[in-house]
Amino acid sequence: MRKVVMVAGGVNKWGRRAANFRQLAAEAAKACFDSNPNIDHKEIDGFILATTYAERTGVQVHPAPFIAQIIGLQPKKLYMRVENQCGSGTTAIRTAWWAIASGYVDMVMCLGVEKLMIPVHEEIFLNAASAMDHDWEGCFGLTPPAAFAMAAQAHMRKFGTTEEQMAMVSVKNHRHAMKTPYAHHYERYKKHGPVTLETALKSRMIAYPLKLFDCSTNTDGAAACILASEEKAKELTDKPVYLIGTSQVCLHGSWQKATYEWWEWPALRLAARQAYEMAGIKPEDVDVAEIHDCFTISEIIEYEELGWCEKGQGGKFIEEGLSDYGGKVVVNPRGGLIACGHPFAATGIAQAYEIFLQLRGEAGERQVKDAKIGLNHNLSGLGEHHIIIYKRGFD
Amino acid sequence: MRKVVMVAGGVNKWGRRAANFRQLAAEAAKACFDSNPNIDHKEIDGFILATTYAERTGVQVHPAPFIAQIIGLQPKKLYMRVENQCGSGTTAIRTAWWAIASGYVDMVMCLGVEKLMIPVHEEIFLNAASAMDHDWEGCFGLTPPAAFAMAAQAHMRKFGTTEEQMAMVSVKNHRHAMKTPYAHHYERYKKHGPVTLETALKSRMIAYPLKLFDCSTNTDGAAACILASEEKAKELTDKPVYLIGTSQVCLHGSWQKATYEWWEWPALRLAARQAYEMAGIKPEDVDVAEIHDCFTISEIIEYEELGWCEKGQGGKFIEEGLSDYGGKVVVNPRGGLIACGHPFAATGIAQAYEIFLQLRGEAGERQVKDAKIGLNHNLSGLGEHHIIIYKRGFD
Repeated sequence: MRKVVMVAGGVNKWGRRAANFRQLAAEAAKACFDSNPNIDHKEIDGFILATTYAERTGVQVHPAPFIAQIIGLQPKKLYMRVENQCGSGTTAIRTAWWAIASGYVDMVMCLGVEKLMIPVHEEIFLNAASAMDHDWEGCFGLTPPAAFAMAAQAHMRKFGTTEEQMAMVSVKNHRHAMKTPYAHHYERYKKHGPVTLETALKSRMIAYPLKLFDCSTNTDGAAACILASEEKAKELTDKPVYLIGTSQVCLHGSWQKATYEWWEWPALRLAARQAYEMAGIKPEDVDVAEIHDCFTISEIIEYEELGWCEKGQGGKFIEEGLSDYGGKVVVNPRGGLIACGHPFAATGIAQAYEIFLQLRGEAGERQVKDAKIGLNHNLSGLGEHHIIIYKRGFD
Repeated sequence: MRKVVMVAGGVNKWGRRAANFRQLAAEAAKACFDSNPNIDHKEIDGFILATTYAERTGVQVHPAPFIAQIIGLQPKKLYMRVENQCGSGTTAIRTAWWAIASGYVDMVMCLGVEKLMIPVHEEIFLNAASAMDHDWEGCFGLTPPAAFAMAAQAHMRKFGTTEEQMAMVSVKNHRHAMKTPYAHHYERYKKHGPVTLETALKSRMIAYPLKLFDCSTNTDGAAACILASEEKAKELTDKPVYLIGTSQVCLHGSWQKATYEWWEWPALRLAARQAYEMAGIKPEDVDVAEIHDCFTISEIIEYEELGWCEKGQGGKFIEEGLSDYGGKVVVNPRGGLIACGHPFAATGIAQAYEIFLQLRGEAGERQVKDAKIGLNHNLSGLGEHHIIIYKRGFD
């Protein structure tokens, strides 16, 4: 199995954009190419597009060739669209990994893109319901906010987690995003200042106990990265970032199929164990992490299942500042899904790009001091988790 | 790069089915499991779902976990949906190949499924337009029949290919499907007998020169197969079928981007050369092939670009019976997309399963005598081609 290295990355501006599906993708691809002028786009032999709602919001089936075309790629060995809803971006990177590791291709671009800010509201509702088990859950109203609200209630009941603790996750991630110009809410902070605990707690109720500021933000956005074989990477960069561990677990899709209470996430526990083992590290070795804060409660439960604190102590972990700069592990330094926004399939790739910047010491104001090992995590439901662990390959 | 082997396969009944998206998938999965009782479904560590229109016809985003769940899989290392429109099935198999070849997983199920016979006609029109470059071609009426009709006109003008020769492809493939019980039109033959040249030529015009019988059939259907590492395969079967060559070329998505006339398909020529080279074979070594007869003209041009006859001689090739039993290479022994039907993402996997049966000598009445090497080919546009070459691994 050949070693695989990330050699470039880029994102576009996220928000309510007057750009269509294809334009969003082109912007991220350009940012990615610009990040590493040593890369000749003709040598990119694979292209993996991650997108969830292309068929509805881009009115385009099999979008991969059209996006490849618009960004100037002619992949001669491999191209495809992958889709795992909120886990699509991480899935694209993993898929590129195997293709390179097997020796079939040398350099693959992964691009995630989502156009979500469309004017048809029924369409958006349909989308939210279809993201869950549509036939048996989504169509009865179990959209993501409702589902994660029940997970939050279970966690509060079992461990005494509070609404304040959840709001603290929101406050932290919004504070981080004040240093992330591409974040959806970046301009808001310039105008209204940081999000305070009071603002978060007083925001309108979406699904008890989750309020507006507990939820991630629908947004238009794209992100891209380029992976290469170790050998190829040596020609392209002197700051390689290695992919060293990964996992993907799918115990069930429907929430009703959980044979456990929703305050525990055994699929994530299993995924974490697998990824750490493959990487040969322990949970405490992670310096910086981009994890799936689709809702504040998610980030709290993830602290626990990723092994950074005891089960049930996630609320205390955020309260004590242990997931912030100066704590045990810096979580969501770019502001996460809550503050950057969540363009589903682009999220995993944007997370990976943030880890890439952090491990290369190029994260500017957001830099986590001397970060050597980073992790990105997506979930696409209660029973589905996706992890990649990265290590800087120079010192 | 580890060697990869196909160890099981199955299809369900194709046609206008009173079954939903999930039921179709479950039927094919059951047929696949039934085909090899040595396989313990708990040992399947990867699941790749190929589906094109799930979001519209299954009203389900991220269908992979829900299909995995309904067929009793809990993939603990890898799962995803892949989509490349008509090339989705072949894309799934290729993706499983790299994942196994890299050493990450040992056994992967690939499942393709499509629910196309839905009652909403505008929806179907939207689907057809969105399969092409929607923004610049599909929405102006360049749906697949219109596009391939223009390719046919170019081929007729350049090489004198005739409507009769195209009809002969239809007659051959329908005749083959008389021995394929799962084919969409199987019951029709029982009632009306074989499709004759006259029937095909007199059928109603769709887009000149393509008539109804020149077109593949929309259908509901699913197909599944299981791939394993060579080591694992030894425990599971004494009739291994090896994957020995593959290619995937995407020169462009939009038809307008072709810098050549539509009677030549350089992307396929390149893909064929790559796949033969990787497999270490010549075009004439292929004994049996399942190729993409979305329209009769496609099969004719494919004979040429796959190297089985000179450029421009495809019409003559079918006329002389060289693509039939007793000819140079038996093409579409199960009846192809024209007679079996074309449930987009299921097609590539059903083709692979037919090659699997043929190389194992298990194709019954359809058996190509002593078939040792087989090929499956999908296209998903003029500039996009997907090939896999298989070899029987016993004698």
